[in-house]
Amino acid sequence: MALGEFELIARYFEPLGRERGDVGGVIAGIGDDAAVLAPPPGMQLVAALDTLVEGRHFPAGSPPESVGHRALAVNLSDLAAMGADPAWYLLSLTLPRVDEAWLEGFARGMGGLARRSGIALVGGDTTGGPLSISVQVLGLSRPGEALLRGGAQPGDLLFVSGTPGEAAAGLQLELAAGDGKPAPDDGTPAQRHVRARFRYPTPRLALGRALRGLASACIDVSDGVAADAARLGAASGCAPCIEAERMPLSAALREASGAELALEQALSGGEDFELCFTVPASRLAELPERLEAAGTVATCIGSMEPGEGLRLRRDGRPWSIRRTGFDHFPSRE
Amino acid sequence: MALGEFELIARYFEPLGRERGDVGGVIAGIGDDAAVLAPPPGMQLVAALDTLVEGRHFPAGSPPESVGHRALAVNLSDLAAMGADPAWYLLSLTLPRVDEAWLEGFARGMGGLARRSGIALVGGDTTGGPLSISVQVLGLSRPGEALLRGGAQPGDLLFVSGTPGEAAAGLQLELAAGDGKPAPDDGTPAQRHVRARFRYPTPRLALGRALRGLASACIDVSDGVAADAARLGAASGCAPCIEAERMPLSAALREASGAELALEQALSGGEDFELCFTVPASRLAELPERLEAAGTVATCIGSMEPGEGLRLRRDGRPWSIRRTGFDHFPSRE
Repeated sequence: MALGEFELIARYFEPLGRERGDVGGVIAGIGDDAAVLAPPPGMQLVAALDTLVEGRHFPAGSPPESVGHRALAVNLSDLAAMGADPAWYLLSLTLPRVDEAWLEGFARGMGGLARRSGIALVGGDTTGGPLSISVQVLGLSRPGEALLRGGAQPGDLLFVSGTPGEAAAGLQLELAAGDGKPAPDDGTPAQRHVRARFRYPTPRLALGRALRGLASACIDVSDGVAADAARLGAASGCAPCIEAERMPLSAALREASGAELALEQALSGGEDFELCFTVPASRLAELPERLEAAGTVATCIGSMEPGEGLRLRRDGRPWSIRRTGFDHFPSRE
Repeated sequence: MALGEFELIARYFEPLGRERGDVGGVIAGIGDDAAVLAPPPGMQLVAALDTLVEGRHFPAGSPPESVGHRALAVNLSDLAAMGADPAWYLLSLTLPRVDEAWLEGFARGMGGLARRSGIALVGGDTTGGPLSISVQVLGLSRPGEALLRGGAQPGDLLFVSGTPGEAAAGLQLELAAGDGKPAPDDGTPAQRHVRARFRYPTPRLALGRALRGLASACIDVSDGVAADAARLGAASGCAPCIEAERMPLSAALREASGAELALEQALSGGEDFELCFTVPASRLAELPERLEAAGTVATCIGSMEPGEGLRLRRDGRPWSIRRTGFDHFPSRE
């Protein structure tokens, strides 16, 4: 192979396969035609595959640590949304050229998040081409415990974790240099905070686990709270109603974007990878303890109603935002 | 999403999720944050992830049926090399634009092979960018039955299935138009045969199954028999010795390439996705029955010797070929 596939894997990625020694289950990892894995008896598998493309999911010239972190984070976020425990992952890396400093940073970003999340690299491939990264994650879930999109009922309350919109504001700043390259690491503390939220999103794995058996439906916010709540509603056969004034806006987001744009970013900005979920009203009292166990905040932003389609209200009146789904790079599309 | 991600999936790919109804195990498939899968009790998982990039793994302008077929075939070949049974797959599709005729052909090529192989599509994503396809396959294997690369011993006999080299000859013809576009579908019957071998390789799943408990090591030939036998030897800690004159050269390959180039293509041409495997000499008598059960031919091309490194001989003398590993598009690298 032109890229020295096996040397690359050995040098940068084989150490990542050893991050999960205490959990085990890896019969054969990196270096064979495929990985052989032993799921614990009685557990179900949870599997997701997502690709990030340079210039579409992250700005050209992004720090390699951020690219490695985000490529794994977006997939871990899918496991979080299912309430699954991360187990193993595979990496397919398409690179325009071999740049050792870049690879080292990429592996550091990906490996750090893998270590903190308890997930082990078990295989994949490298090839030449325009920069893109596919990560496939495998998680574990007890039968019947996976959080699906389709279980919400009219009357259930609708929640979102954290303070969505910050990553969208951060991406705006990343792109501010105008040529697709991230701006230098300067700006106010609020600006630096929201940029870090774009570069290093936290998959809500602890929250997903804590919601098992309580949330009636769950989805991760990759395309914006409005768009993803609409998907949850469509899968559940009822209508999410969001009260816009309830959206949790962080001080940093208000400062970076101003109050009005902040609200729009909170509703339509993706890339935060927060969780949007529903809880039956009759079981609301159980939620605070779960959130505390997860160390995560969540805010009630509305409820599920009979019917279909997203309903957005502000101060009791129907309201709309310019777009409900997040275009990663609006200027290009 | 600019590409209408969910509509695409619904229209072209959701039907592929239903190809494996009798095998089951899909608790939640396409349409949630991740797939939920129930492996049969006591089975181990076999997992591989491979990406194909346009202009590197297949010529720009290749028929979409071929692209869909090959993207799944290269991954099924990894399962074949492990002796695993295909179960589920995920697809991540990066497309420069939405071309419905192309997508229809792609889904037909991938879906046809999936149906014949008993594997069900359970998830993935679509995004915009330079054409590339990542497929992640999940197979099943009984504990201890997976065929690894590292089990060969000195004295074991070395085999290759089928008639390798044809796909390399076919790719040469595909590229003959000179601008990276496939030539029109004309030529002699031999030329059409080798081109079809490139476009629609057959993963050797039945052979992999038949070799369980008999082959001491196995690898799929993705980069050429010489290069992949060398990898098998390196993993096993012994030296593969290939007697070049034993290489099985098909009549079509000899006709398309001439005898001398045919031998080189058979040794160094990848993309056939045949299996290269070793059998202990003491158990050689068991092989014919296994091959017959699989409906596949295999040829003894040498043996494993103590030491390290590939040993290539021709008519008893040390010999070498110009290259041992296959460059997909040598002119570019």
